[in-house]
Amino acid sequence: MPELRKEPVSGRWVIIATERALRPTDFKAPSHSIKGGGFCPFCVGNEDKTPPEIMAYRDKGTEPNTRGWRVRVVPNKFPALVVEGSLDKRGDGIYDIMNGIGAHEVIVECPQHEISLTALEPNHVQEVLWTYRDRLVDLKKDRRFIYGMLFKNVGAAAGASLEHTHTQLIVTPIVPQTVATEMEGSLTFYRYRGRCLFCDIIVQENSTKSRVVMEGDSFIAFAPFASRFPFELWIIPKKHSSHFENIQKSEIEELAVTLRSALCSLESALEEPPYNYIVHTSPFDQPELEYYHWHIEIIPRLTRIAGFEWGTGFYINPVPPENAAEHLRNAACIAKETK
Amino acid sequence: MPELRKEPVSGRWVIIATERALRPTDFKAPSHSIKGGGFCPFCVGNEDKTPPEIMAYRDKGTEPNTRGWRVRVVPNKFPALVVEGSLDKRGDGIYDIMNGIGAHEVIVECPQHEISLTALEPNHVQEVLWTYRDRLVDLKKDRRFIYGMLFKNVGAAAGASLEHTHTQLIVTPIVPQTVATEMEGSLTFYRYRGRCLFCDIIVQENSTKSRVVMEGDSFIAFAPFASRFPFELWIIPKKHSSHFENIQKSEIEELAVTLRSALCSLESALEEPPYNYIVHTSPFDQPELEYYHWHIEIIPRLTRIAGFEWGTGFYINPVPPENAAEHLRNAACIAKETK
Repeated sequence: MPELRKEPVSGRWVIIATERALRPTDFKAPSHSIKGGGFCPFCVGNEDKTPPEIMAYRDKGTEPNTRGWRVRVVPNKFPALVVEGSLDKRGDGIYDIMNGIGAHEVIVECPQHEISLTALEPNHVQEVLWTYRDRLVDLKKDRRFIYGMLFKNVGAAAGASLEHTHTQLIVTPIVPQTVATEMEGSLTFYRYRGRCLFCDIIVQENSTKSRVVMEGDSFIAFAPFASRFPFELWIIPKKHSSHFENIQKSEIEELAVTLRSALCSLESALEEPPYNYIVHTSPFDQPELEYYHWHIEIIPRLTRIAGFEWGTGFYINPVPPENAAEHLRNAACIAKETK
Repeated sequence: MPELRKEPVSGRWVIIATERALRPTDFKAPSHSIKGGGFCPFCVGNEDKTPPEIMAYRDKGTEPNTRGWRVRVVPNKFPALVVEGSLDKRGDGIYDIMNGIGAHEVIVECPQHEISLTALEPNHVQEVLWTYRDRLVDLKKDRRFIYGMLFKNVGAAAGASLEHTHTQLIVTPIVPQTVATEMEGSLTFYRYRGRCLFCDIIVQENSTKSRVVMEGDSFIAFAPFASRFPFELWIIPKKHSSHFENIQKSEIEELAVTLRSALCSLESALEEPPYNYIVHTSPFDQPELEYYHWHIEIIPRLTRIAGFEWGTGFYINPVPPENAAEHLRNAACIAKETK
């Protein structure tokens, strides 16, 4: 059973793998590279090479764990947290511990071996986004779980170990620190101004336009004012909403286009860079909140993070977001059609 | 002039390089590798290949910027912040900006081309530590500056671009977020318990011993309870002190041995891994604080940080600190002698 331990100084939670602990010799191998080319457990026809599916969008009349699916959700084969068990929150002197209970799932976004979500048609991307929503709605019924974090790693430098396009979902019994910090900051602003900070950001970005990359009726994609990373992009719904899983159908339709186009611009401008994106949303146990606003943060992994960033949480970004936005607006984006 | 911009949601400050902004094509090159082998601007005899020295420990009768030095401090040739100018704190709608004023120095730790601090004799390491102190004492006289962050990058994967053993010092007009978070956490504990959290951690680690790697009269080195990274190590003075620059002579003598031995154990157990270490100390504008305790955090860079860690500030560590400490205690450490 993995342990969740709280670092008492910063309040940060860490998952400590206690069972399959690595030894020093395990780190002597060269850094891992991504698995491509050969056998892919996510490809259609290999349904028996993953743990049994949790859900799938699949063609009528087809059976679970067989062909016929379009989007498929399976448990992570090497989960960071385990589903079965109780939290057993406890102390050890000044330290806090709980069992590493949670969910760790993989959303396989398409049956054929595509390496980018941009290779999928917008209708298909919509089904991926519906899957995001469906899993959050299902998992939040479990009262042990407080937070669901959807994230995508693309490229070995971004932490991907399989190239077939997929998203991961980790569900935790605590609110992760980054989100807690964002919520505190937004709440402080809300208490002072009586408005949602993110809504104010949307207004200001819309009035200056210099950092806006694309905009539709329901979503705006922009390079944030204090981007930590070159070509960092945020996609945010223009209508206030604190929880991703409350997204409307019309919003899903537009988000599918916006997300695909934004990623396509990045791939075009930066020649298929490694990247992560993370859906920042509110905790399961919170009602609709006036002060927090869900959004997607896209982080190209172009620069190595050195000692300064690690120690301080203080980033050096060599590309002003105004320049990044201009490059991304200009990036011709001819989406590959898959069918 | 670089800009310091504050991310309004998280409160994190980012240095945005506005002058020598990189373009997308600058990121298409393969990831940088460390400069070794050939010409080294930090080696003795190449004093004219760095900006003029700020200070040095050097043999009597030798001139600045010539041979005869043992430890030498020069401005970083590519500084993240610039020394000249005023902060000009200002707003832009809801955003906060100030000029990127600060200091960015390099402490070259020895004249010969050594690639590890462990190659230096303890007496020499003492002079490196005195240099750390001297620079903090000097820079804190400038009222524009609030914080001095000493950090070391070893190996390309840890962000080093030159292999000759050196430390960097970045002095900023704000308190970096990681330190601010630590100070808040410690202050909360202090208000509740009336004691320093770090002092309590020392007591608990000393009573259990399972995470302690080495201990002397004045310092203890241990793998922290909620280590974010495999083989993470903290070195902390046993006597309470909030500011590194107030270190006593006897402490410098012991720290030189402890730091060198700790790094030597890491190098031995993990076969010379890339790593960072960072001195966490109190802001310049604070008096001696009862609630904060300076320390050094050593972070081997063995695992790639993937999407999950980025988005959440939530880490997965595959090596329990108890196992890491045991491996490090057992790591035979035969220090190279340089003379």
